[in-house]
Order: sequence, then C-alpha cells, then structure tokens
Amino acid sequence: MKGSKYKVAIVGASGFTGSELTRLLAGHPHVEIMHITSESHTGKPFSTLHPQFLKIVDKELESASVIDNADLDVIFLALPHGVSMEFVKRWKDKKTKIIDLSGDFRLSTPEVYKSWYNMDHSYTDGFEKAIYGLPELMGEKVKNSSLIANPGCYPTASILSVAPLFAANLVDPDSLIIDAKSGLTGAGIKASATTHFSNVNDNFKAYGIGIHRHTVEIEEQLSALSGTTATVQFTPHLIPADRGILVTSYSKPKVAMDSAKLKSIYEEFYKDKHFIRIRETAPSIKDVRGSHYCDIFPFWDSRTKRIISIAAIDNLLKGAASEAVHNMNLMLGLDEQSGLNQIPLRP
Amino acid sequence: MKGSKYKVAIVGASGFTGSELTRLLAGHPHVEIMHITSESHTGKPFSTLHPQFLKIVDKELESASVIDNADLDVIFLALPHGVSMEFVKRWKDKKTKIIDLSGDFRLSTPEVYKSWYNMDHSYTDGFEKAIYGLPELMGEKVKNSSLIANPGCYPTASILSVAPLFAANLVDPDSLIIDAKSGLTGAGIKASATTHFSNVNDNFKAYGIGIHRHTVEIEEQLSALSGTTATVQFTPHLIPADRGILVTSYSKPKVAMDSAKLKSIYEEFYKDKHFIRIRETAPSIKDVRGSHYCDIFPFWDSRTKRIISIAAIDNLLKGAASEAVHNMNLMLGLDEQSGLNQIPLRP
Amino acid sequence: MKGSKYKVAIVGASGFTGSELTRLLAGHPHVEIMHITSESHTGKPFSTLHPQFLKIVDKELESASVIDNADLDVIFLALPHGVSMEFVKRWKDKKTKIIDLSGDFRLSTPEVYKSWYNMDHSYTDGFEKAIYGLPELMGEKVKNSSLIANPGCYPTASILSVAPLFAANLVDPDSLIIDAKSGLTGAGIKASATTHFSNVNDNFKAYGIGIHRHTVEIEEQLSALSGTTATVQFTPHLIPADRGILVTSYSKPKVAMDSAKLKSIYEEFYKDKHFIRIRETAPSIKDVRGSHYCDIFPFWDSRTKRIISIAAIDNLLKGAASEAVHNMNLMLGLDEQSGLNQIPLRP
Amino acid sequence: MKGSKYKVAIVGASGFTGSELTRLLAGHPHVEIMHITSESHTGKPFSTLHPQFLKIVDKELESASVIDNADLDVIFLALPHGVSMEFVKRWKDKKTKIIDLSGDFRLSTPEVYKSWYNMDHSYTDGFEKAIYGLPELMGEKVKNSSLIANPGCYPTASILSVAPLFAANLVDPDSLIIDAKSGLTGAGIKASATTHFSNVNDNFKAYGIGIHRHTVEIEEQLSALSGTTATVQFTPHLIPADRGILVTSYSKPKVAMDSAKLKSIYEEFYKDKHFIRIRETAPSIKDVRGSHYCDIFPFWDSRTKRIISIAAIDNLLKGAASEAVHNMNLMLGLDEQSGLNQIPLRP
Repeated sequence: MKGSKYKVAIVGASGFTGSELTRLLAGHPHVEIMHITSESHTGKPFSTLHPQFLKIVDKELESASVIDNADLDVIFLALPHGVSMEFVKRWKDKKTKIIDLSGDFRLSTPEVYKSWYNMDHSYTDGFEKAIYGLPELMGEKVKNSSLIANPGCYPTASILSVAPLFAANLVDPDSLIIDAKSGLTGAGIKASATTHFSNVNDNFKAYGIGIHRHTVEIEEQLSALSGTTATVQFTPHLIPADRGILVTSYSKPKVAMDSAKLKSIYEEFYKDKHFIRIRETAPSIKDVRGSHYCDIFPFWDSRTKRIISIAAIDNLLKGAASEAVHNMNLMLGLDEQSGLNQIPLRP
Repeated sequence: MKGSKYKVAIVGASGFTGSELTRLLAGHPHVEIMHITSESHTGKPFSTLHPQFLKIVDKELESASVIDNADLDVIFLALPHGVSMEFVKRWKDKKTKIIDLSGDFRLSTPEVYKSWYNMDHSYTDGFEKAIYGLPELMGEKVKNSSLIANPGCYPTASILSVAPLFAANLVDPDSLIIDAKSGLTGAGIKASATTHFSNVNDNFKAYGIGIHRHTVEIEEQLSALSGTTATVQFTPHLIPADRGILVTSYSKPKVAMDSAKLKSIYEEFYKDKHFIRIRETAPSIKDVRGSHYCDIFPFWDSRTKRIISIAAIDNLLKGAASEAVHNMNLMLGLDEQSGLNQIPLRP
Repeated sequence: MKGSKYKVAIVGASGFTGSELTRLLAGHPHVEIMHITSESHTGKPFSTLHPQFLKIVDKELESASVIDNADLDVIFLALPHGVSMEFVKRWKDKKTKIIDLSGDFRLSTPEVYKSWYNMDHSYTDGFEKAIYGLPELMGEKVKNSSLIANPGCYPTASILSVAPLFAANLVDPDSLIIDAKSGLTGAGIKASATTHFSNVNDNFKAYGIGIHRHTVEIEEQLSALSGTTATVQFTPHLIPADRGILVTSYSKPKVAMDSAKLKSIYEEFYKDKHFIRIRETAPSIKDVRGSHYCDIFPFWDSRTKRIISIAAIDNLLKGAASEAVHNMNLMLGLDEQSGLNQIPLRP
Repeated sequence: MKGSKYKVAIVGASGFTGSELTRLLAGHPHVEIMHITSESHTGKPFSTLHPQFLKIVDKELESASVIDNADLDVIFLALPHGVSMEFVKRWKDKKTKIIDLSGDFRLSTPEVYKSWYNMDHSYTDGFEKAIYGLPELMGEKVKNSSLIANPGCYPTASILSVAPLFAANLVDPDSLIIDAKSGLTGAGIKASATTHFSNVNDNFKAYGIGIHRHTVEIEEQLSALSGTTATVQFTPHLIPADRGILVTSYSKPKVAMDSAKLKSIYEEFYKDKHFIRIRETAPSIKDVRGSHYCDIFPFWDSRTKRIISIAAIDNLLKGAASEAVHNMNLMLGLDEQSGLNQIPLRP
C-alpha cells in the first residue's frame, strides 16, 4: 500500500457479524470495501438489509462468485460453519489473506472438529495453515499467517479471563468452571423460538449445558497455553440484552496466592495490550459495548481459596468483528489500533 | 377458625415485598388483612404507593403502633434488617405469630449475625425461638413455631437446588459453587445508582463477590442438612429483568453417579412437595414468574464428573412473599396450597 | 349447572391467546376444560408448548375434530382470521356457544371484511348472528348471543378510551386521532424478523400507518355508538415490552368542556363497570398487567381545546383472553367477575 | 488554528450529556479537551464517574472556577437550567464561545421563560445574544454566534419532523399534534422513582400531558418558521429503552396534497443536509442510535387527509451532545461533519 488503500471483501453480509464488519471497515482509514456478498439478497443495497446504513453504505450486494477473479488483499468470511470451509477451499490458491469468522478452522484436527460439530470437514489441509487469531496471545503468529480462524465469542472472553493463570501454569487444570452469560445477538439474526422477543425479554436461562462447542475450543487453547490438559466446565446462559458477554471463571491455584500477587500477575501479563483493561471492580457488559475492549477483574477469595476472574466483552466486536479487524491490522502490518478507536457506548 | 377468617397485619408496606404480600393475602380465602402499616406514608391509601391496587386495596396505611393492641393471628414484617428485630422484640409477649421477612433471625447466633451484618443484634433471645422457614425442608418445625425467619431469596433457590445432595451427604461439602443471577427487584424499591434504569437495562454484572450475606445463610443450612461443614462459593449477578432468580450450582459427588441416579435422587426427595417441579430441561425464570413454584433441573456431566443443578424461582414470591404465606398456612394448620394457586405469568 | 361445571374447549392452543385462555379457565370456579386442540402438536401435553404449565395443565392436545361430537357449553376459538370462520361454519348447528377471538366476525358486512382483510368470507351468515363482545358496551346483547366476535386488542383500549364521548355524541367524529402503542405479544408467537429480540429490544417504531385493520373496527363501533360517521386516524407503535397496550386519544369537543365536566362524564358512564378504573393521573401498562382492568385517564387541555384520553390494558387479557372469559360469564349467566379476580402483577 | 487544535472545556460532567460530549470531543480531530468540571466530584478521574472511559479519558475533574482564567475557544455547558444561566453571565466578557445545552436561552423572552420554567431569569441580556442552535434551520446564524442555546431533545425531533411544512406555511398551524416517545436517558442520571428500573422496564406511560416545557420551545420555533402562530399539542411518553426519541406528528394541510408532492417537499427542503435521512418506510430509534442522524418518514393519509410525519433521533446525540458539536463545527468554520461520522450502533 503506497498512498492507496487495502482492498477487502466481506462474504456473507446478512448477519450481525457481516453488518458490524462493514461498520468497522467503512470507517477504517486504510481500507476500502470492494465487495459485500449475499447469495440470498444479491442486487439489493446493503442498507436494505441493515437500515442503519442508509446513505452511509448503500453498496449493492453481490454473489460471492465475484470474488473468484477479484484482486483483493483480505477476505472476511462471515458465514455459518460448514459453509465457510467451502469458500476457504475454493480460494486457497488466491494470494488473498482470509479471515474466517466461523468455527471451521478453530480446532486442532478434523477429528476433534467432527466429534463436536457432528460433520465431516471438507478441507482438512486448512487445519495446518490456520492460526487461531486471538491477538493478545497469538499476535506474532497472526502477523505471518494467511488464514486466520477468528475465535468464538465465548472463547475470547473465557480464555482472556484466565490466560495469565494458565500461561504460568498456576492453577489446577481440571478446576476451571466458566459460568458464561451472553446477550441474544450471540444466537444470530435468524428468527426462531430462541430469538423471539417474548422468550428472551425479562427472562434468563442456561442452555447447551455440558455440550456447547465452545468448550473444546477453550480447552484446546488453555491446554496449549499451559502445557497441561485442561478440562473445562463451561455453561452458557442467555441475558435479555442485545450485546455483551460476561464470564465468571472459577479456578483453584496450585501455588500460594494473595490479592496483590493475583493483580500483578494479570497486569504484568497484559501490560502492553492496549485493549485489555484490568479493573479494580467488577466490569459490566455496558462498560465495553460498541468497543474492542476486554475488561477483566481478577479476585482472590481467601476464604474459599479460589480465584474468580470476571471478563466482559462485546460479543459482536471483541468476540467477532473487531477481533477480525485487529487480526487484519496485524496481518497487514498496520497499527494494531487502526480503525478500532471506538469508545464504549454507555448508556 | 369456624366460619370466620384469620386476622393478619402487614408491617412495612412501601416495598416490593409488602406489596406482594398484600396481593397474595388479599386473595387468600382464609385471611383478612386488618392493618397495613407504613411510618412514612401513614394516612395515605395503600393504592397511592402501589397504583396497581386502585379500587382493589385502597385501605389506609397506619402507623405500626396500631399493632400494639390489635388482636391478630399473624404479623408479617416486611422491614429492613436491623429494624425488624426491634418489632419482634416489641411484640414478643403478644400471642400473635410473627413471620419476619428480614435477615434478622436467619442465622445461627448473634455472633455470626454481627460478623456478616456488621451490627449488634438487639434481641438475641429471638435466635432460639426462630425457625428457618423453608417449608420444603422445615415444614414440621414451622407448624409449631411462633416466630419464622423467612429465608432470603438467593438462599431459597440455592438451598433447594442442592438439598437432595446435601441431605444424603453425597457431595464434597467444599466443592459447591453457586453462580446466582437475580432480577433487579432483589435490590429493593429504593432509588439509587444501582436501580437506575440506564445501569441495568441491556446490562449485566456481578456484585458482592465473595462477601454477600446470603453466603453464610446457605452455608449454615447446608451444613445442618448434611451434618458436615459446607464452604460455599456464592457469586450473585444482576439480570436486566424485574423478577426471577436462577442459580447454577456446581458440585463434585463423593459417590458414583449417573444421570438416572441423579434424577431419581431429586424426584424422591421432592416427591410430596407440590411447589417443586423437577424438569427434564433447564428452566427459565419466566417459567415460574408470578408463582410459588421452584423449578429444578439436575444434570450429570459425565465428562467433567460434576453435578450441575439449576433452579429458578420468582424472588419476590417463592423467595419472599409467597414463601411467607406458605409458612403462615403451615402455622395455622391450613392447606399448604391455600391462596398460592397462581399459574406462572408467561410471556 | 347444578353442582356441576360448564364444559368448555379451547381450539388453537399454540399461541399466546390459547395459553392465556387456558390459564384463566383452569382457575375458573365454574368451568371445566374438556379439550384443548392443536393440529400441529396433537398428542403432546399442553405443558410441552407452554412450559409454565408443567404439573398444572399437562392435558394432551387433541385435533379439533374431537369437538365435532363433543357435548360442550362453550367453545373458544383462538385461531388466525380466515381459519376461524371455517370452524364457526362447521359447528354452526351445534348448540354450543362460540366465542371467536379472531377478526372474522367483528366487522359489519362481508364487503367491509373483504376490503380490509383482502379475502372473501366463507361464512357470511355469521355476520348477522355475531355480537361484538365488548362487555362494557354490549353486555346485554352478549347475554343472549350464541356467537361472540371478541374484539381486537387495540379496538378494546381505543373504544373504551373514548366511548363516553361518542355515546353522548360530544366530539367532532372526524377529529379522533388514536396514537396507540402495544407490547410485542400483540405480534403473536410466530418467529419472524418482527419478533426477533434484536429488532424489538431497546427499540421503538410505528407500523401499519394508515392501513391497520383495527382502524375500521374502531370506526364502525364508534359510529354505531354515536349515530354519526366517525373517521379515525389510528397509528400503532411497538413497545419493547411483552404485554400491554396504551392508547393516547385526541379529540375535539363539539360542546363546552372543562376538567370537572369531563371527569364526571367518564365516571358516570362507567359507574357500574367493575373493570374500568378512572384514574386521577396517567396510567402505565404495568398498572394493569396480568389483569382484566382497563385504566383510563381523561384530560382536558384548556390551552389547545382538546380532550386527551389515555387508556391502558393488558393486550393478552382485557384485549383478548379475559375479555373472552368475561363474555362467557355473561353468556352463561355467571357473575361477571367470576374467574377474573387477578390483581395486576407489578413490578 | 494553524496545526494546533481548538481548546474546549466541558462544564458539568456527571450527567449523560457531559459524558457523551466527552466521548465525541475526545475523538474529534480538531479539538483538545482542556478541562472537564464537576463541583461534586472535583479531583476524581472522569472515568470514575463513567467507567466506560477507563484508560481512555482518565482526566481529573476540576472545579468550574478553573475556567475563569482559562484560554479557551469553546465552552460547553452541560448543566441544569437555572444553573447554566449563572455561568453564561459569569463568563459573558470572555472571548470564548459558549454552547449552552440547558433550556435557559432557548425561549424568546424572560417572560416566556418565567411562565414555563417557574423561575426568574438572572441574565436577561443573554436572550438577545443567544441563537437557537438547530443547525439544519439556523446554520448561517450559528456560524456568527458566540452564544448557542442548544435545542431540547424533543424539540429537535419535533421541529425537524415538520419544518418543511411550516417553512412553506402548508399546514393549519393549530392542527399539529406531536405524540412523542423518549428513552429513559431523557430523564437524566439522577436516581428517582421515575428512573427506577422496575418502573420503566416492560412498562410504558405518558407524562407531562399538556404542560411539558418543550411545548413552547416547539411552538416558538414553528411560529417563527411559518410566520404564523402555531399552537401545538405535545404529549411525551416514556419508552423502556436507554436512548432514542420517536415523534409521530399529525397535521392538516391547507393546500392540496398527495404522496409524491409530500415526499418532494421533504427531499427538497433537506437536500443539502447530510444528517437528515428521508426514509421510504417508518424509521425505528435503533436505526439512528449512537449517531447524529435524524431519520424522517413523511406519510400522506389520503383517507383522513392528514400528514403523518415520523422522526427518530438519538436523544443524547442529535438531541443534545452531537448537536452541540455540530454547532461548534459551524462556529469554528470546520467541516460540519467533523467528528460526527459515527455509524448507528444496531443491534
């Protein structure tokens, strides 16, 4: 890039992730959106699907086939798992970098993928190429990668909440319980009983108990980080709110611990990480809404001898779209904060 | 009672608990509300404070001093802790049964009270008389009591979620983690930053981490139930909803466990308890809203070897007002379900 | 009925109206629910569809064909318009009274029906038989009817908000503007973009501007009431709440008006109507939630010379299910309040 | 400004307006925030009051007295009415431009002020100097002003919804009814019964019927615009949402009207106004949340012969903070869009 802008495309524009990617990239100083695709809405202006973009992004939606011969620097795939792998395979010989926001390349092997996603993987070569794109942990690897598996929303918050503990192998790897809570946008834009207002409003429930796919994603990353085999109890719940994930992580230290020590472990680990904010009190999801921040509050309970670590993110941003942009910045050698300077929108 | 009705009074009518007690007792077939008191609103119609009662309960609010010489069967105290103990002391020689909805007589000793409530107790004799009024566990004792300490909202849901396990001493008493979530009404009717709409709506946060007073209430009851010393990790969170508590309890069994065994333990333990509903799937708080039900879903995670038990109640009813009415029914020898036949209001 | 109970059936149990009818009728002292039908869920327990009913109403859902030979006193039709007319026709020779909660028999003629509902009516004889079941206005006619067209939710609130004015022909019949707001349950249980949580939560919008079908229903009833031809401006909006309709009605008086006179007109008109509460201040939808009340606040603006009348109801109850039960009570000669003694659930 | 930035101060930082001004100005390319003041929180970091700003704006809060001798280009007053006028008076001889976000200088005369605000005005000279800062209507006057009365939130949406009609004197000036709805942040950050979550959540109500202060503000501006005397019926309602105002305006044209003509009137009037978006369908408040846009949908109801115009804004931005920044841009000769390029945050 010499004076010009990097050329990017967003594949799959009908969902929340596609919409938020477009919002961030439309405001990114070093990027130009060349194509936005949607197979079911080809020919319509993007702002027809997402009315907040009227007069801002009215660009016409195209079929993904337009990408085949397009000269692009980065492709963002905002597609369901199972679909995404097909496009990664289709464009594997292009020189374009690919950031895949689905779950298709996040796990270690096709076998693990099959056991948790209940389907065969159609592009197993991708597992070797793909880098798990959690920038705070994988920054250097991301820079040299051409295929990024953008992390899941729950795993982003979950892993960041305890990474300083696992990186130093300080906790019993079987003791970790992550009680997670997410706003409804995590369930996607599709209309269903799950997303019906009357089932969510003024309500609260757990779901996917013991079987949620993000469990293995968290376990694999924490195991790699600690050099142990972590077994994680992960329970997601649904908050009657649009955006936000809050995780409450419980773990047992293997070493002597106190409040000051715990705090310094977190501050040291994240000291150069602009988007991680270690807090003195528990964060709420509105403290990070609309931004790329992950707020973390580590707490030592001397009575029970447990570490409780609470982390909050915006699931659509730090847990998806802005994390993808962060990865793009790293891959293109741009400033990490480029286009990610949004201050949280509260109230 | 032969043809006539029992005479009751509600002391402290300005809050949510006083309001809900009035709603239930106004519709109770065997009870007549003689007095509703409020020191700060004496002389006003009750429906001025709680407009939903217009033309239903317009009864004039009185000073609590009217109770001194009143001939009553039951007094409900819907007062803050610290205030409530004064009235229990003041009316200790009346023959009237007292149901105290504050925390003043829930704990084992004045010393434990002081260490968690940070104040001296002014009526220590009450500790011996008071029965912890969780009807499903204490039904027989409640029947013969003249002073009931009505349980806290979180303890009601928390204890019921794991009582079958602790009663049979099946779990490691130090393994229990209760990740609890409550609607905003649990914070009371007083206006504050905590209850400001913009801090609650579309938001979610943890609070009172490691120090919430309900922790010791849960620990004491589970310890008594199991004959062990239970240490409980209790973390409350605030749901952007009016009513409802959902607790997610994690524990480690000391014995061999499987799904069928776990289910039968719960079903057996609660088999005659009308208001406990063992579910096949995880309950949501709206499934019990406006009712006296406690819905419980016990789950065995064979992968992690943990029991997860989820319980949902309406914090203002099963966690406060209807629990008090249930206790009253027991104390007066009435049918347990009398006046408690509300079907949950959903959506 | 001598010692026994009236036998009723609910046809169409999958929606909110069917669910609320069941809740009310299950608690009604003079009624027994014989059948609950659902073509798409035949054979399942009712509580599978509506989990709040677990252990309360687990009755098995049946096909509507079971009604053909059933001996019943009252049938409630909780079906979509267009479908409902077929069942009214099918059971027209049964001696059973029918209360139809759809829009199929609310209008004056098949022609008017066709012009607003865009379909031919298949049972035009029904128009003569059907009585518009707004109990406060049509009570006597309802008593002698065998087919009730239960009013729409918006029309119930709208008509009640101004009936005292139109009954005495006090306002310019072309001046009426009804700015109406409804909770999301008015849109039904079907999953769609409209009912997706993220489109409703923290949001607000108008819809059906100038063309909503309830416009003609309101116009016809107010025209009949006043003996004039009323042209009504009706604009519905969507509140991010589950239940409740609030209408703000604006009209110009044809006669001299003042605050005292306005208030006395409303109080006089509704003086024997138990479920109408004339308020001194503006009601909110939570003041009536979960109940059969309609709260009305009439206001004279001497500066602008307009009457503003605000009415609040629970759209699923006073605007649907409890209104149907009220009609049943009238048809069966029961006390009007029978089974309708719920106190509003607030907060 | 030659290479350097304009120096600004925000007086009154504890409320929502002060917080949002800070967010916008912290991201404005041509401005530097020199002081943020709060008398009750002097010495604390700004991010203590508004935790979303942690590590972004931690600047220490100062007393407003620091402004007395400060060299500034623009002062923003985010203070209550009555207080604001004192500071305008105090700093009247400074060369600094003042943008007052209170209601103190919005009306035509001290007499009108007194009759609607029930207090004497202490700086009556300000009325001559102050320009009503609605940029789309007053842009040229704003450029040359040194004292801006930033419009009220409701008046901004209300006036913009019908300005094209009044500017051309097309409607009966007594026919205008504005049925307005606002999110709760319009009630401010102070804790009270009005702002208590349980009174707002799942609720809806009207307030200030016939007497709201914004009525006269709207009337004065529309009268000036049309050269007539407009009498406006204005009724505000409270939406259970954080942000957003939606107004539904009803008026009667004095001239022949049709849909195409109406649309062209609006498009012509706003053709150069970047932040006004004329829509083909009704906007919702989330379509503009977090942005400076005002979305308008004009509708001609040929059946009733009324114009219905619906406008949506973010009350904290277009109705307060971003409108103030827009005014600052005009006063400083900057690009109107400078610092106001936020894309609405939806969902």
